[in-house]
Amino acid sequence: MLKVPEHQVAGHIASDGKLGPLVDDQGRFFKPLQGDSRGEHEAKFYESFTSNKKVPDHIHRYFPVYHGTQLVEASDGSGKLPHLVLDDVVSGYSNPSVMDVKIGSRTWYPDVSEEYFKKCIKKDRQTTTVSLGFRVSGFKIFDHQESSFWRAEKKLVLGYNADGARLALRKFVSSNSPADSNLTPNCAFASEVYGGSNGILAQLLELKDWFEIQTLYHFNSCSILMIYENESILMKEGDDAPAARAQVKLVDFAHVLDGNGVIDHNFLGGLCSFIKFIKDILQSVDKRDETNTSLLENGR
Amino acid sequence: MLKVPEHQVAGHIASDGKLGPLVDDQGRFFKPLQGDSRGEHEAKFYESFTSNKKVPDHIHRYFPVYHGTQLVEASDGSGKLPHLVLDDVVSGYSNPSVMDVKIGSRTWYPDVSEEYFKKCIKKDRQTTTVSLGFRVSGFKIFDHQESSFWRAEKKLVLGYNADGARLALRKFVSSNSPADSNLTPNCAFASEVYGGSNGILAQLLELKDWFEIQTLYHFNSCSILMIYENESILMKEGDDAPAARAQVKLVDFAHVLDGNGVIDHNFLGGLCSFIKFIKDILQSVDKRDETNTSLLENGR
Repeated sequence: MLKVPEHQVAGHIASDGKLGPLVDDQGRFFKPLQGDSRGEHEAKFYESFTSNKKVPDHIHRYFPVYHGTQLVEASDGSGKLPHLVLDDVVSGYSNPSVMDVKIGSRTWYPDVSEEYFKKCIKKDRQTTTVSLGFRVSGFKIFDHQESSFWRAEKKLVLGYNADGARLALRKFVSSNSPADSNLTPNCAFASEVYGGSNGILAQLLELKDWFEIQTLYHFNSCSILMIYENESILMKEGDDAPAARAQVKLVDFAHVLDGNGVIDHNFLGGLCSFIKFIKDILQSVDKRDETNTSLLENGR
Repeated sequence: MLKVPEHQVAGHIASDGKLGPLVDDQGRFFKPLQGDSRGEHEAKFYESFTSNKKVPDHIHRYFPVYHGTQLVEASDGSGKLPHLVLDDVVSGYSNPSVMDVKIGSRTWYPDVSEEYFKKCIKKDRQTTTVSLGFRVSGFKIFDHQESSFWRAEKKLVLGYNADGARLALRKFVSSNSPADSNLTPNCAFASEVYGGSNGILAQLLELKDWFEIQTLYHFNSCSILMIYENESILMKEGDDAPAARAQVKLVDFAHVLDGNGVIDHNFLGGLCSFIKFIKDILQSVDKRDETNTSLLENGR
């Protein structure tokens, strides 16, 4: 009963007989263990992290719940392979908008092979990893004109400069047609999704507080997933309307290392840069709303 | 009346007929403009920064005061050359202990030449720049046994790993003989210099607050200088004793770039890592003092 996940926006995607993650209809996400020991490394991280009492509970909730590994039929037809079994973080959402942002100003780390270093740093310099401390890896949003999902093209996403990344973060919380690149994103959901006491920004700031002191792990090449329920926002009129359920999750731990008493300054620096982008969008929306209010008041 | 500065701990040093900075006896520091336009770049930065009203006053005080450029007799005997004229940050100290820490997990930046990139990244990987987000470039402390200055050997400093950097930061605030590498640094001045409302940590935290929001400049390859008055600490007994006058200054701006709306995540990440090292030392000293107090109390 496993199928290809509908809402995955980055990484290896199980389609056309390729190896990739699968989901079941019980809210579980099955990620095949990657080759050359990376998969085992990720499983070990989950084992260590899940039972680590030094990690506060409010931080644990930013990570997918781990249920061990399991042999399941692989998506590429190569028979049964070991998979990480995780909670499917978008399970329970009707029309989740999802963005994957890889955090850090480098994806390589000390003591990697020269080959891996060269591969990583080339991509880090080509994308916004070096310049911004993060890069958008992919995103999809619900297109209200078309009543279907719109998915950003991978090639375009990886070609973003600072302005492209900024625009993508605005588009991600807009209700006007994402497919039309001439339209300026209206940021209709910005306050709802990025703002508020349960919004994305509040969650990122909570993570930042932890990253300023935690020296347990270095999260090399990890991503932040941002998820929100699109349908609910549109339906939201009355007091009992469902919320956007904006959520931040950390994913991809194949390159996590021990912190050895040093904070993860690479992740923290990128996270702070990302936070500033989100804050700037919220500020621009606040300014616009103030201007509209004062125009209305003057017009009375 | 210009002479070679007594308290410089890193960078080009004017001795044996080499080109380097000079000081006068009026508290001015003369830094020769570096070749290949780096000197001009640094002068332009000082011009821009000094008059930049967007930089708050309490941040301006972390930078040396700039007095323009001036033609003065160069230290290498090559005649009159243009020099930056700055306040000598150690002027007014009797026995300043000084440490230079280059901040950031990289010293290169986007759009540099391949040659410069390769030179920088090689050194960044050999030192603690990549692993810790900062590297100690040099330091000198007053040796109370010898009543003279002890200077860390450049070769050893550049070979530090995480433990070496930690030890240097402890040694920097210790009163026992720095020359004897078998002695564990006693951190006698840690609370005085790193702690307190005017100490190094408080100043670093003030800088951090600014770096979380400022998008004006990217301080590539800049250093934090830490300075404190050594003699005064020893004399300090009565209420009217002089303070350690611990001071943080930012120096070396030949590679500063416009921020273009993005925070300096490279500097900020490294600064946060450095702050954690300082906090850890303060915490270990607090713990020791508590233990000593309770031992004393139990002994009564």
